Amino acid sequence: MEQPGNLLTDLYQLNMIEAYLDHGQTGTAVFEFFVRDLPPVRRFLLAAGLQQVLEFLEAFRFSPDEIGWLAQSGRFGARLLDYLAGLRFSGEVHAMPEGSVFFADEPVLRITAPLPEAQLIETRLINILHFQTLIASKAARMVLAAPGKQLVDFGLRRAHGGEAGLFAARASYLAGFSGTATVLAGKLFGIPLFGTMAHSFVQAFDDEAEALLAFAQSRPDHLVFLIDTYDTIAAAHKVVALNAELAARGIRLAGVRIDSGDLVHLAGEVRRILDGGGLNATQIFVSGGLDEEQLASMLAAGAPIDGFGIGTALVTSFDAPALDCAYKLQEYAGKPRRKLSPGKATWPGRKQVSRNFTPDGRMAGDIVSTADDTPPGEALLRPVMSGGKRLIPPVPLHDSRAFAAAQLAKLPDDLRSLAPGAPYDVQIADKLKQLADFTQKGS
Amino acid sequence: MEQPGNLLTDLYQLNMIEAYLDHGQTGTAVFEFFVRDLPPVRRFLLAAGLQQVLEFLEAFRFSPDEIGWLAQSGRFGARLLDYLAGLRFSGEVHAMPEGSVFFADEPVLRITAPLPEAQLIETRLINILHFQTLIASKAARMVLAAPGKQLVDFGLRRAHGGEAGLFAARASYLAGFSGTATVLAGKLFGIPLFGTMAHSFVQAFDDEAEALLAFAQSRPDHLVFLIDTYDTIAAAHKVVALNAELAARGIRLAGVRIDSGDLVHLAGEVRRILDGGGLNATQIFVSGGLDEEQLASMLAAGAPIDGFGIGTALVTSFDAPALDCAYKLQEYAGKPRRKLSPGKATWPGRKQVSRNFTPDGRMAGDIVSTADDTPPGEALLRPVMSGGKRLIPPVPLHDSRAFAAAQLAKLPDDLRSLAPGAPYDVQIADKLKQLADFTQKGS
Repeated sequence: MEQPGNLLTDLYQLNMIEAYLDHGQTGTAVFEFFVRDLPPVRRFLLAAGLQQVLEFLEAFRFSPDEIGWLAQSGRFGARLLDYLAGLRFSGEVHAMPEGSVFFADEPVLRITAPLPEAQLIETRLINILHFQTLIASKAARMVLAAPGKQLVDFGLRRAHGGEAGLFAARASYLAGFSGTATVLAGKLFGIPLFGTMAHSFVQAFDDEAEALLAFAQSRPDHLVFLIDTYDTIAAAHKVVALNAELAARGIRLAGVRIDSGDLVHLAGEVRRILDGGGLNATQIFVSGGLDEEQLASMLAAGAPIDGFGIGTALVTSFDAPALDCAYKLQEYAGKPRRKLSPGKATWPGRKQVSRNFTPDGRMAGDIVSTADDTPPGEALLRPVMSGGKRLIPPVPLHDSRAFAAAQLAKLPDDLRSLAPGAPYDVQIADKLKQLADFTQKGS
Repeated sequence: MEQPGNLLTDLYQLNMIEAYLDHGQTGTAVFEFFVRDLPPVRRFLLAAGLQQVLEFLEAFRFSPDEIGWLAQSGRFGARLLDYLAGLRFSGEVHAMPEGSVFFADEPVLRITAPLPEAQLIETRLINILHFQTLIASKAARMVLAAPGKQLVDFGLRRAHGGEAGLFAARASYLAGFSGTATVLAGKLFGIPLFGTMAHSFVQAFDDEAEALLAFAQSRPDHLVFLIDTYDTIAAAHKVVALNAELAARGIRLAGVRIDSGDLVHLAGEVRRILDGGGLNATQIFVSGGLDEEQLASMLAAGAPIDGFGIGTALVTSFDAPALDCAYKLQEYAGKPRRKLSPGKATWPGRKQVSRNFTPDGRMAGDIVSTADDTPPGEALLRPVMSGGKRLIPPVPLHDSRAFAAAQLAKLPDDLRSLAPGAPYDVQIADKLKQLADFTQKGS
């Protein structure tokens, strides 16, 4: 995917780098990305976006046009401009694989690089990781709420700009969605595409049945009729009446979609009408302002729904549209560093996360330790880039999706609930606590 | 700004267009974009994004690569592919100017074009208008909450992808913010840029005062020190102690920034310390998870704060991360159309919004009418594009910002409040009600 360029950053990054260069502050820095606290409506998070971060780092260079624009702004001296013109990312990346379940205070990604490089990438790195993780974590709740059902991302129009729509399609597919309506996400990421019809199609014809038949003739494969433009029950009867004509043309009606009204009631009535007309194999899809709570309650009510189109609640993570995440300097020039700002103090140094499991393979508690410690459990952060080059080929999105599904299967039952509850057990290793005590400001 | 291409759309648009073409449904369609209901935490909305919509329409064409990808997908026939390959937007656009205040049920933009064109642009048109309007409307609340204060967008990292960061910078500047930290938004939109320093800069030095002095030497203009990395009060004293050295070097300290802690208390203490050290002209900026309620309460408490850096609450519109907006077919082939779905019924036909004012120039009630009606008041929708060409040159962002400020000045006092309250008076004209009664489905 094309990168929007390296001016997609905060001005202060450039200001700081100029000062770093002036004062020889180009030693090795270690930054970590983590989430300080989970939103009350999230029991766990699902890591996503690493692939785009690595693409960003590989492609990291300032174009002559960008350097020229910075020069003519009059803000910066030749030392900075020359540095930027020759800059490539030369550092190391350690990260949890995409699809990993993680929790508050656990580093998901660690950058080890000369300070100006590690600093300059901050804004876009957070911008990519935060949003995809936000959406994958929201999508995972929907996947857990509707096991075995088809979930499709319909959210591009209400996503926050174009890239949000693309990233949301990717992150939700990673988390277990079946696909997306966003065509470009299919092209860029190989995600299965789904699409039916809009109310405007039905409205553009003088007669609803005429509209449905016209659509069926042109788009006979994977045919899904939208049936709530005027009166859903009446439309369901029209669909049954149309079926002989469809069958005569060799067209099978794959499904109907209902986008408004009392979906539990309507799905039941429509199921009855379809079954009564011999359309037992025709599936029912619903959409319209759905979130995971509604998915769970509709299914608990026994609504005969086969799939859900989900938009706004997914792509904006409506109930928690941001995570309290940070990318913080943990070590510089070989010394651990610690920010002490009230409510925002950090654990210093390079860290690792180790996860323990019950005998039947469920997650049973994590330990955040210094990177050179050896607590029990599986180490979650792995090297993925060194010297600015990938250590392993890009992981296919389908593989990351399978990994995410395996991760969700390892969640303790309690964390699979949509309701708030006790947090998962994350311990800080003694050696890390000692390091934090020892790391005074400026020491 | 570069467009991400016309595959940034929903699959169903392409499906429907294939069916429209097959069935000769290429007559003139009228679609309108509007918001069904305001979020409870919004008293009005501020229109934004028209400029990017017009750029999108002007640039609307499928590349050979896009056509090739659609062809190899096997989903579409030659008729659709040939149509798309030659497609340009040829229609008319009527719209409220950017920066216009508007309310629920009021069309903000009207597209009049051959049905396949008007349909195909839907997804990206909503994607642009919805988000910029969402952010401009949120930003306007902050502007009203902190009159005369400097407000700066710090949100790129938590914005939902790169385009969201850029659009949020633009929409908040339009609504009255002073500028943004996002460098690329400065380049693309000419928005003033602001930037200070991060905690990592301070942490990378062994001593806080040393870090501040190093920064001042490299970046002496518009110098702002971040002072909460370890202990804000102690840092304020260090700043005073540093000032003689700064003055000796001819450097004036423009401001200090506090990013954590009890900001009201700290701003007061820091103000006292700075004034005591002769730094009366040094301004105080605060940041850190701020929203408009906190702005209002900090200022009401008399905190001596000169400016605010605002991130997540702004760029995600955290308390209302989406609007209930729609782009609906209102007329096709000369006949008004009306969707009747429960809770989503629309007012049919081409419409206009007329606004009335009190003698002192405050907004005093709107009337939504058919476009050919002549209710009293100022007509808000104006022609901006015809035959796919702009009727007027692009409006400079600074002019739209001035227009938005004039609009906010015309709000009734009650609507300027952050608290919920009675909705603004929007009447539906009798002639429109009659048209709605008359417009049966399919009639």
